[in-house]
Amino acid sequence: MTVRALVFDVFGTLVDWRTGIAAALARSGVVGDPEELADAWRMGFLLATQEVVRGDRPWANVDALHAATLDALLDVSPEERGRLVAAWHRLDPWPDVPSGLEALRSQRVVATLSNGHIAMLVDMTRHAGLRFDALLSAELAQTYKADPAVYSLAPRYLGLEPHEVMLVACHPLDLAGARAAGLRSAYVDRPLEHGPGSPVRADPDADIRAVDLHDLAAQVGNA
Amino acid sequence: MTVRALVFDVFGTLVDWRTGIAAALARSGVVGDPEELADAWRMGFLLATQEVVRGDRPWANVDALHAATLDALLDVSPEERGRLVAAWHRLDPWPDVPSGLEALRSQRVVATLSNGHIAMLVDMTRHAGLRFDALLSAELAQTYKADPAVYSLAPRYLGLEPHEVMLVACHPLDLAGARAAGLRSAYVDRPLEHGPGSPVRADPDADIRAVDLHDLAAQVGNA
Repeated sequence: MTVRALVFDVFGTLVDWRTGIAAALARSGVVGDPEELADAWRMGFLLATQEVVRGDRPWANVDALHAATLDALLDVSPEERGRLVAAWHRLDPWPDVPSGLEALRSQRVVATLSNGHIAMLVDMTRHAGLRFDALLSAELAQTYKADPAVYSLAPRYLGLEPHEVMLVACHPLDLAGARAAGLRSAYVDRPLEHGPGSPVRADPDADIRAVDLHDLAAQVGNA
Repeated sequence: MTVRALVFDVFGTLVDWRTGIAAALARSGVVGDPEELADAWRMGFLLATQEVVRGDRPWANVDALHAATLDALLDVSPEERGRLVAAWHRLDPWPDVPSGLEALRSQRVVATLSNGHIAMLVDMTRHAGLRFDALLSAELAQTYKADPAVYSLAPRYLGLEPHEVMLVACHPLDLAGARAAGLRSAYVDRPLEHGPGSPVRADPDADIRAVDLHDLAAQVGNA
């Protein structure tokens, strides 16, 4: 296996969006359970991205989709909407991520491959102290995952063959999209992405299955 | 002055291409003075980029333009051409750059804004140990400096107004291109870019004039 670059999903795989967004919603004083609202907002956002992929909605960046889908969920002031949309730029990483990513960067080229637009990823990586060799974003293809155009950005801009690039993600649909574009895939388990007790996921088709980024570094290092 | 991001020219401003390429040419055993050949190759490459900007040549990345312009200059084997083209991916930074860039990154968002394609910038920043928040490249606009489309990449992908972005470069034409696109400009003196004793440059129109990146950090920090 000649993987020369690892590209990472960000939301869920590297950062804990649910805890951060629930906390932001709780601070904003909106009516309702903050974690349920965070889940509903995330679901509304993901549905909006799929409308973009199908061509039923014009492309707009994640901030714009977050603002529109929040408005469909809650009645908030423009100022509060702005604060809540901005909360998605400053989410905390899972505990293994900063040091695990450094271990992986010592072995291979590492880049994001995220739905998040580049300005959002700049804020996130500065907030979380994460170091990537490059930020690649679905913004560069003006669509969203799992549009094949997103995955093809990685080999194109990293100057590699698709099979030399491995997507790291905790979402089977994302990994399947990568494989459909000829990339390799590594499934990382994030059992707390949707909170304690949420259904167990797995991806039997992934090239690698890892419990965290340190486990991934050990497996990639041996590969 | 509300500069929120600094974007950097790379070749000449951050890395010493002439010393590195002359050394690679000397190692390759080609006939001729290595430094004069390095200068001639650089000039041939820059002229090729201007053909792209004028629409007289289809866009191709820097590796392809380096290969074509080397072939116009020297008769080398494909293997030697490959080694010499690759030498442009692994150039050493000027001595102030690694620590000066870190000082600037603690103050502002920092990104490249280079003619180099993203894969080339990944190699260069890994080789030189330089940390950027994002790699922006003329590749994303499929043209070259000083095409206005290159400069507009920076505010677009960093989510800023043009006047919130400052280009850092040692080339007055590059800085003039940035200003024409509404960006701010910082001239950094690199008196050795073209070797000892080369003509003195300056840019009286730049917002900041600095002798190196530490000087720039002091001036930006006070601004």
